[in-house]
Amino acid sequence: MSAIIMSGKTLADEMTIEMQNDVNQLKKKGVTPGLVVLLVGEDSASQTYVKNKEKRAKALGFHSLIRHYPVDITEEELLNEVNHYNEDPAFHGILVQLPLPKQIDSDKVVNAIDSVKDVDGFHPINMGKLLIGQPDKIPCTPYGIIKLLERYQVDIDGKTAVMIGRSNIVGKPMAQLLMMKNATVTIAHSRTKDLAALARTADILVVAIGRGHFVTKEFIKPGAAVIDVGMNRDKNGKLIGDVKSDEVAEVAGYLTPVPKGVGPMTITMLLYQTIESAKKISALSKKM
Amino acid sequence: MSAIIMSGKTLADEMTIEMQNDVNQLKKKGVTPGLVVLLVGEDSASQTYVKNKEKRAKALGFHSLIRHYPVDITEEELLNEVNHYNEDPAFHGILVQLPLPKQIDSDKVVNAIDSVKDVDGFHPINMGKLLIGQPDKIPCTPYGIIKLLERYQVDIDGKTAVMIGRSNIVGKPMAQLLMMKNATVTIAHSRTKDLAALARTADILVVAIGRGHFVTKEFIKPGAAVIDVGMNRDKNGKLIGDVKSDEVAEVAGYLTPVPKGVGPMTITMLLYQTIESAKKISALSKKM
Repeated sequence: MSAIIMSGKTLADEMTIEMQNDVNQLKKKGVTPGLVVLLVGEDSASQTYVKNKEKRAKALGFHSLIRHYPVDITEEELLNEVNHYNEDPAFHGILVQLPLPKQIDSDKVVNAIDSVKDVDGFHPINMGKLLIGQPDKIPCTPYGIIKLLERYQVDIDGKTAVMIGRSNIVGKPMAQLLMMKNATVTIAHSRTKDLAALARTADILVVAIGRGHFVTKEFIKPGAAVIDVGMNRDKNGKLIGDVKSDEVAEVAGYLTPVPKGVGPMTITMLLYQTIESAKKISALSKKM
Repeated sequence: MSAIIMSGKTLADEMTIEMQNDVNQLKKKGVTPGLVVLLVGEDSASQTYVKNKEKRAKALGFHSLIRHYPVDITEEELLNEVNHYNEDPAFHGILVQLPLPKQIDSDKVVNAIDSVKDVDGFHPINMGKLLIGQPDKIPCTPYGIIKLLERYQVDIDGKTAVMIGRSNIVGKPMAQLLMMKNATVTIAHSRTKDLAALARTADILVVAIGRGHFVTKEFIKPGAAVIDVGMNRDKNGKLIGDVKSDEVAEVAGYLTPVPKGVGPMTITMLLYQTIESAKKISALSKKM
């Protein structure tokens, strides 16, 4: 038996068609979804991510803007920029590309984004709404994973789910989303004892620890759905996940590939939430 | 072997002595911690809770006020009251006693409380800060449980913790607090299969489901710390917990009693957070 491959690329393409339709509808009403990305400094990985986002946003017909600031911008100057885009009605989504240089308090900057325009879903108020079970904007990677599980009709209700990794951008919000769908969720991490045995209890296993090929077949319950959030380079520079996919695919029921698994879904959900935000803001402004 | 009884009453008394000292220090600086409770309607359980809170606040020398509103108060009127106390510098903590009558959207009212004065810790921004691991105001019951575990020197780091119950006021924030202390945490609930077997994996078991004597000795790993958040009445009107304490005490290493376990800690943490809020607000106003 070999696992069904859950293709983020395929689902992203499907969703893009629907989203294109939504953008066209909005444009007929005179609204163009606008996304501004604030990028500080010259980090090359960040620049690549930002360019990918822009490319996909433009392909959908967004009003897309990258603002590029020098690495020595002050916190106050960057906060002023955030405030400017909070007020600017042309933009429905604001994304501050992380990491920021060390003279800037990232939390302060993220907290300054109007929570309505927080399409990354990292603002504490959006995290809080998620924790209390009333999600609004949702961190894009876990949101994309839920969409993938739904698309491939993976049962969640009453199932056992284990997150490996407790980050604010994957593990913790992912746990909330799966719990809302009635999974029994455990968050494991570096201090967890006998991780493989715990992972083997999981019907749904989400791996986000940033260690190439860490999860082997010994971690997998036969038939489990395995989500690989890892993006690592092996010694030859090849992109690999946190999951040793060749052997895990022989045990798991479902598996996301790397690349073309979770990655394409993250950007898709960012664009999706920008469109949702454009719909909401334009509906509100009509009422006023 | 019989479990060590973790007395919330004893710890609450100890903390009250320290808190009394803090209140005296604040008063020397001209600051009296102020707590206002907004109570709507005639719910008798709510009235009892509110009276207990007032009694303990007054005993500590707080400026304590109960505002009692008619059951037919409108949402707008109640929001105006919240805004009034947000602005009133005499109060450092605002508590809206739940439940509210059905014409009022409780979330809207809780969200209107200035998060600095949200001594209950239920505001989404405070829940969000908790989820991202930067807690500020914390829901009082789980906060009190952490204090109890610390007082009785229960190991948390690297241990397995299971929450039974996924409420916003206990299970979910409790999971975050235990995870911050490096426990591997699972949240179980009504849809969880084989609950007793899962509970038996727990070094720390927190039970908050509101079903009298639901947790029997079959749920307990020998030596575990068992926290009973339940407050139920048996058929004779006697107050009982969610844990069948007589038999569980023979297996567990630590157990909170009902009454005098978690209950006294909840009010204590409410008062504690009001004092912290008074310290913070008075320090801020000095800077200005």
